[in-house]
Amino acid sequence: MSDYEVTPQTKIKRLPKRAVYDRQQIYGILDEALLCHVGFVQDDQPFVIPTIHARIGNTIFVHGSAASRMLRSLEGGISACVTVTLLDGLVLARSTFHHSMNYRSAVILGTLKLVSDSEKKREVLDTIVEHVIPGRSAEARGPNEQELKATSVLSMDINEASAKIRTGPPGDEEEDYSLPVWAGVIPLSLEPGTAEADDRLVDGVKEPDYVTEYHR
Amino acid sequence: MSDYEVTPQTKIKRLPKRAVYDRQQIYGILDEALLCHVGFVQDDQPFVIPTIHARIGNTIFVHGSAASRMLRSLEGGISACVTVTLLDGLVLARSTFHHSMNYRSAVILGTLKLVSDSEKKREVLDTIVEHVIPGRSAEARGPNEQELKATSVLSMDINEASAKIRTGPPGDEEEDYSLPVWAGVIPLSLEPGTAEADDRLVDGVKEPDYVTEYHR
Repeated sequence: MSDYEVTPQTKIKRLPKRAVYDRQQIYGILDEALLCHVGFVQDDQPFVIPTIHARIGNTIFVHGSAASRMLRSLEGGISACVTVTLLDGLVLARSTFHHSMNYRSAVILGTLKLVSDSEKKREVLDTIVEHVIPGRSAEARGPNEQELKATSVLSMDINEASAKIRTGPPGDEEEDYSLPVWAGVIPLSLEPGTAEADDRLVDGVKEPDYVTEYHR
Repeated sequence: MSDYEVTPQTKIKRLPKRAVYDRQQIYGILDEALLCHVGFVQDDQPFVIPTIHARIGNTIFVHGSAASRMLRSLEGGISACVTVTLLDGLVLARSTFHHSMNYRSAVILGTLKLVSDSEKKREVLDTIVEHVIPGRSAEARGPNEQELKATSVLSMDINEASAKIRTGPPGDEEEDYSLPVWAGVIPLSLEPGTAEADDRLVDGVKEPDYVTEYHR
C-alpha cells in the first residue's frame, strides 16, 4: 500500500482531481524542493517560517531558523504543518477566472520533535547538505561538537500527507474558446546562474563539477 | 515613519543582523513573489497552504485554495500568517555548518477577513492577475457575476511584519579559510521557458509581448 491514508484533515476539497496521496510522488516533491514552509502555533498566533529540509525514509527533518522560535514552545513535540511548493508555470486562460499556475505542492501534518542524539543529528545535517547539493558533504568540513550542539534539528514522521498537482494547458469555458485572446502556459523553473567563487579560495582550488553542473 | 513596529512576535531573534522592518523592502518582497504560504489553525492543527497573493497599498490579498479550508472556520476573521520567500542562491561555505542560502523572506501576522463587496473583489482579482503577469488583465475576459461569487477573496492589513534577508558570500570560521575546499555562491532565479500556446487559439492571435518578454 503506497498511498497515505486520506484523513478529514488531508482530504482535498477544492479541485479534488488535483489531489495526490501517493507516497512516491509526495517523496519526489519533498526531495526536489530546496526549502519548505513550517507552520506552528505560539500563543494562539500561527507562524509560517521558511527553512531547509531533507527526507530520510518516511521522516522529514528541518533545521535552522524555524527551530529557534519553535523550540521555545517545544516540550515533547509541537503540532506543525510542513508544506513544500514547486512552481512549474503560469497558466494563462482566456478568462481571468481560469488563470492558474502549474505547481506541485505537498502538505504534511504531524508533530515536530527535537532530535537530540548526536550521531543522528550528524546524519541529518549531512543529508540536508546532500539534499541541497549532492556531492558536497564529502568535501566540506563536517560539524564539530560545538557546532553540532548549536544546531537544532527537528523531525516529523510522515503519516498524514497529501499533495496537489496541476499540469497542462488552461481549461477555459467552452464559449470563451472563440475569444481572440492568447492563452497558454509560461513554464517556470529555478535556474542556477554562473557560480561566484569566494574571494579567499586557496590557490589551485577548482570549481567542483557538482557546482558547475548544478541543476534542480 | 517607514518601518513596521517591532513586536515581540515579529522580533527576529536568530541572526538579527538579517532582520528588516522597512516597509518598502517588505513591499518589494511581497510584490516580486509569485506565491505566498498562508498559515492558520483549525481544531488546534496548523495548516500551511500555498496560494497567490497581491498587495494593494498596505493590505495583502489572497484567494484560491487557501480560502476554501479557511473559510469554514472564518467568522469575522481568522488569525493567520502570510509568508513569502524568494530564493536567490545557495551559499557554499568551507564548513557544512556555515552553508546557507541567499534569500529574502517576509512574514506578516494578522487577521484574514473575507472581502464581500463585489467591486472590491473585482479590483483585487484584477490586481492579482496584474501582480502575476502585468498587462494581462486588460486582455483576458474579466469575471462575470457567477465567477465573482464563486471566488473567495481574503484581506489582511499589514500592521505586524518583518523580513529577513541574506546576501553575499559565505562567512567561514577564520581557521577554515586555509582549507582547500571550493566556496562561493550558486545564484538561483525563477526563469521562464518558451511559452506554450494553447492548441485552440483563434487564428491570427499572436503571443503578446508580456508573455514573450516575461520575467520576474
